[in-house]
Amino acid sequence: MNKAIGVFDSGLGGLTAVKELLNIMPNENIIYFGDTGRVPYGTRGVDTIIKYSRQDVNFLKQFDLKMVVVACGTVSSVALDTLKKENDIPIIGVVEPTAMAAVKKTKNKRIGIIGTSGTINSGSYAKAIEKIDSSVKTFSMACPLFVPLVENNYINNEATYIIAKDYLEPLKKEKIDTLILGCTHYPLIFKVISDIIGKDVELINSGAETAVYTKQLLQEGNMLNSGNKAEIQYYVSDNVPKFSSIASNFLDREITGEVKIIDIEKY
Amino acid sequence: MNKAIGVFDSGLGGLTAVKELLNIMPNENIIYFGDTGRVPYGTRGVDTIIKYSRQDVNFLKQFDLKMVVVACGTVSSVALDTLKKENDIPIIGVVEPTAMAAVKKTKNKRIGIIGTSGTINSGSYAKAIEKIDSSVKTFSMACPLFVPLVENNYINNEATYIIAKDYLEPLKKEKIDTLILGCTHYPLIFKVISDIIGKDVELINSGAETAVYTKQLLQEGNMLNSGNKAEIQYYVSDNVPKFSSIASNFLDREITGEVKIIDIEKY
Repeated sequence: MNKAIGVFDSGLGGLTAVKELLNIMPNENIIYFGDTGRVPYGTRGVDTIIKYSRQDVNFLKQFDLKMVVVACGTVSSVALDTLKKENDIPIIGVVEPTAMAAVKKTKNKRIGIIGTSGTINSGSYAKAIEKIDSSVKTFSMACPLFVPLVENNYINNEATYIIAKDYLEPLKKEKIDTLILGCTHYPLIFKVISDIIGKDVELINSGAETAVYTKQLLQEGNMLNSGNKAEIQYYVSDNVPKFSSIASNFLDREITGEVKIIDIEKY
Repeated sequence: MNKAIGVFDSGLGGLTAVKELLNIMPNENIIYFGDTGRVPYGTRGVDTIIKYSRQDVNFLKQFDLKMVVVACGTVSSVALDTLKKENDIPIIGVVEPTAMAAVKKTKNKRIGIIGTSGTINSGSYAKAIEKIDSSVKTFSMACPLFVPLVENNYINNEATYIIAKDYLEPLKKEKIDTLILGCTHYPLIFKVISDIIGKDVELINSGAETAVYTKQLLQEGNMLNSGNKAEIQYYVSDNVPKFSSIASNFLDREITGEVKIIDIEKY
């Protein structure tokens, strides 16, 4: 098979980025790793997140890759610089492409950011926006219960609306016109978020923006796959049956091919 | 220091058992390990839970222990037999003492069981009750969102009530008179559970029952600590500041002494 794109996430969320990669680059081979044995990352400390993501990259590097996409807001926020320094292969995170897209969209220069505690505590999106346009004001809110709600299929539920109101109403008061979904799980509750924050606020999907940016980089480097049927391989660190049954919600298509379990602690 | 009791859990929940151990045996030394770097266990596969809990016991076995208390419903349900087979030291889980207490309490012989997905899928409590009194009927329900709700301090919140109703109303319809809180996190939402299931249903706290049983075993073996001020040592695999700030909710007292971080994957 031609050189593949390696994609990893703490668990299933990164599949929303894979969905977009497949939509815009149907000929690319993809190796996906979801660290389902240690999910979630977003509530853990910086050292642990760096250690885990280092192992994730080490695992992916066994394959013949042209690029690694960190399809996880938390890892992109906390560990990306370390991973880039330690590896020769190009590594793309979700923060910069998403920040660029948000700055392009905003008209009133007031952007909201939601993500895991790890992502929000790092200030990654706010710093990236500040670098692009220092006249933009940002307003951030950690939403630690969104990941477990999504993973337990509490998608369109009254409880999810109540919790989302707790998280989003402070941002709504700030009159933002653009909101970054800074975690790749959040597109699954797009409707809940949009209902609460208001239809006039533009939601920026970090996985989708990163897929667009990845395509752009591959095009610029003349590295796009020229043809052939693409192959996707899925690897997880735990619980293959659960992955297989839930993954299609994230991907918005059926999983084809085998899902394999690996021991990530060895890497 | 005299021989200690080793206690471990996937995270913070086990501290509700430590609280009870300290209440009834204030002179015992305790070594606590919370696997905060890999919490939660309850949604993971059997092989992963066994692997993680084997490492947890290996870590604790470095200390001079007289007993290990598995203060985690999931590990007690899925891995206890393996751990007992592989180790010489006495290892106590929460399932048997809790099942015994529930069978003693029930009058109508209808017992409800709530726990993580791992615990409920294992059928551990139902099997233990069947062994003690096969005329008792059991009704089980996995409550996967209770752990993240508790860990994010959604204790007395409308959303928690809505989710708890989803989980508990099917059990209420079965006219149970006793409900096992099969996860050591659940005592923190005792009031929510009791409000929904009804004041006439007796709630059985697995951590508290296990503490009582531990004391009984130590007494029988003449192994109780004869005096001296007790010492408690806390170890975690991630995020010491978060542990220190939340642990007092679980313990119902301030943490005294240092909390140390360890690399559990080495064990």
